[in-house]
Amino acid sequence: MVFGMVVGTVVCSSRKDGTDGPRYLLVERTDPRGRRKGDHLVALDAVGAGHEELVLVSEGSPARETPSTVNRPFDALIVGIVDVVDGQEGILYKK
Amino acid sequence: MVFGMVVGTVVCSSRKDGTDGPRYLLVERTDPRGRRKGDHLVALDAVGAGHEELVLVSEGSPARETPSTVNRPFDALIVGIVDVVDGQEGILYKK
Amino acid sequence: MVFGMVVGTVVCSSRKDGTDGPRYLLVERTDPRGRRKGDHLVALDAVGAGHEELVLVSEGSPARETPSTVNRPFDALIVGIVDVVDGQEGILYKK
Amino acid sequence: MVFGMVVGTVVCSSRKDGTDGPRYLLVERTDPRGRRKGDHLVALDAVGAGHEELVLVSEGSPARETPSTVNRPFDALIVGIVDVVDGQEGILYKK
Amino acid sequence: MVFGMVVGTVVCSSRKDGTDGPRYLLVERTDPRGRRKGDHLVALDAVGAGHEELVLVSEGSPARETPSTVNRPFDALIVGIVDVVDGQEGILYKK
Repeated sequence: MVFGMVVGTVVCSSRKDGTDGPRYLLVERTDPRGRRKGDHLVALDAVGAGHEELVLVSEGSPARETPSTVNRPFDALIVGIVDVVDGQEGILYKK
Repeated sequence: MVFGMVVGTVVCSSRKDGTDGPRYLLVERTDPRGRRKGDHLVALDAVGAGHEELVLVSEGSPARETPSTVNRPFDALIVGIVDVVDGQEGILYKK
Repeated sequence: MVFGMVVGTVVCSSRKDGTDGPRYLLVERTDPRGRRKGDHLVALDAVGAGHEELVLVSEGSPARETPSTVNRPFDALIVGIVDVVDGQEGILYKK
Repeated sequence: MVFGMVVGTVVCSSRKDGTDGPRYLLVERTDPRGRRKGDHLVALDAVGAGHEELVLVSEGSPARETPSTVNRPFDALIVGIVDVVDGQEGILYKK
Repeated sequence: MVFGMVVGTVVCSSRKDGTDGPRYLLVERTDPRGRRKGDHLVALDAVGAGHEELVLVSEGSPARETPSTVNRPFDALIVGIVDVVDGQEGILYKK
C-alpha cells in the first residue's frame, strides 16, 4: 500500500449505461509524514475517508477484493485511514 | 485510476484470425486539471468517450472486469468520462 | 496497451524440462509515432508480427488471456499490429 | 520480490465497519546490501519481521496468496526475512 | 518479460512457520545485450539458471503460473535462460 492524502473528489458519467458513474476521491501521493509528492491518482473509498485525511491506497487487482468492487474495473482502493505512523526515531505522523 | 485525455484512435489488425482487431483509443496522461503529460497509452473504451474528453483509465487486470473485456488480453480500459474534479481550493476541472 | 516496435527475436532454453523454451520477440517501446524510446521488453506474439512492425503490447496478467498463454507464466503479449494512429492534428503513424 | 527494511509501523482505522484496521509495517526500499533508497511502502507481515530487519516484499496480486490475505485488498506482503545475500564478489549482506 | 543476469543468491528465513524459506536468486536487470543496469530484483528460478547467466524474468501475478509457484505469494519468476538475442543489425547477445 502507499500513502496518500484525500485532496478532492471526481465526478464521472458513464454514458454507456445512461447512469451516473461512481463517485471517486482524488488522492495525492505522500511520504510517510504525509508530505505531498505532486502525483495524483483516483481511488474508490472503502472506509469513509474525508478531505485532507492521510490514507492507505491499495493498487492493482487487489483493489477488487471488497464486496463493492469485486468484478468491477477499479484499480485503486482506499483501504484505511492512517492514525499514526511510528518510525524508528519517533512519530512520523499523527492524526 | 489515472487521468487521461482522448487524443486519437488506433487501428490494428490481428493477422492470426484473419479479422480486424478491435478499435482502440489513444490516451495521453494528464494531471487532475487535464494538463497533458506527454506520455501515452492505448485503451479500450467502455463509456463512449470522444476526442479531447478527460477520462479515467483503469490499468492492469481490473481492465478485464467488463462484459466486453473479460478473459481478453487488454490491460487498459476507459471507465468514466470526467465531469468535474473538485479540489480543496476549488474546481480543478469542469467539462 | 503500449506501443512497441519488433526489433529482434530471443531464443531461450528451459533446462528444467529438457525442451527448448518458446520463441519470444524483442520489442522496443515507442511513442504513438513509432519513434523508439531505447527501452526494451520481451513479448510473446499472438498475431504474427514481423520485424520493424509497430505493435500493441498488453502487459501483466492480461497477457495470459489467450488460448496459448492461459495459465502460463508470461507477462507481455503482442495483441495487435498497428495499421494507423490517427491523432487530433492528423495521422501520427501509417503502416 | 524487492528488498526493504522495516523502519516503522502504521496504525489505521477503518471507519466503515467500526473496527480497527489491520496493523501494517512501514518498509523502506533498499538495494541488495540493505542500503536505503528513501522510498517507502506499507506491507503486511507474514513472517514476524522486526524493526531494522531486511526483508523481501512481494507486490501486487501475489500478496493475496496467503491464508490471512486471500480475498483481501492488500497489495504488498513481507514474505521472508533476509539472512544472507551472496553476490559474485562475496557476501553483500549478512544478518 | 525483462532481461536480467543472475548475480547472486538470497537466503531467507520465514520465522512464522519455523522452517527455512525458499531459496531465491538475485537478478540484476540488463538491456538486450546483457549489460547491467544497476537495478536488482529477487526471483524464483523455474529453469535451473546459474551465476552470470542471462535470463528472462516474468513479473507480477503471471509468476504464479507454475506448479511450484501457484497460489504462493511470489511476484517474479525466471522463465527462461537466454541463448541468443538476434537484433536487426545482428546478434546482440550469444551465450
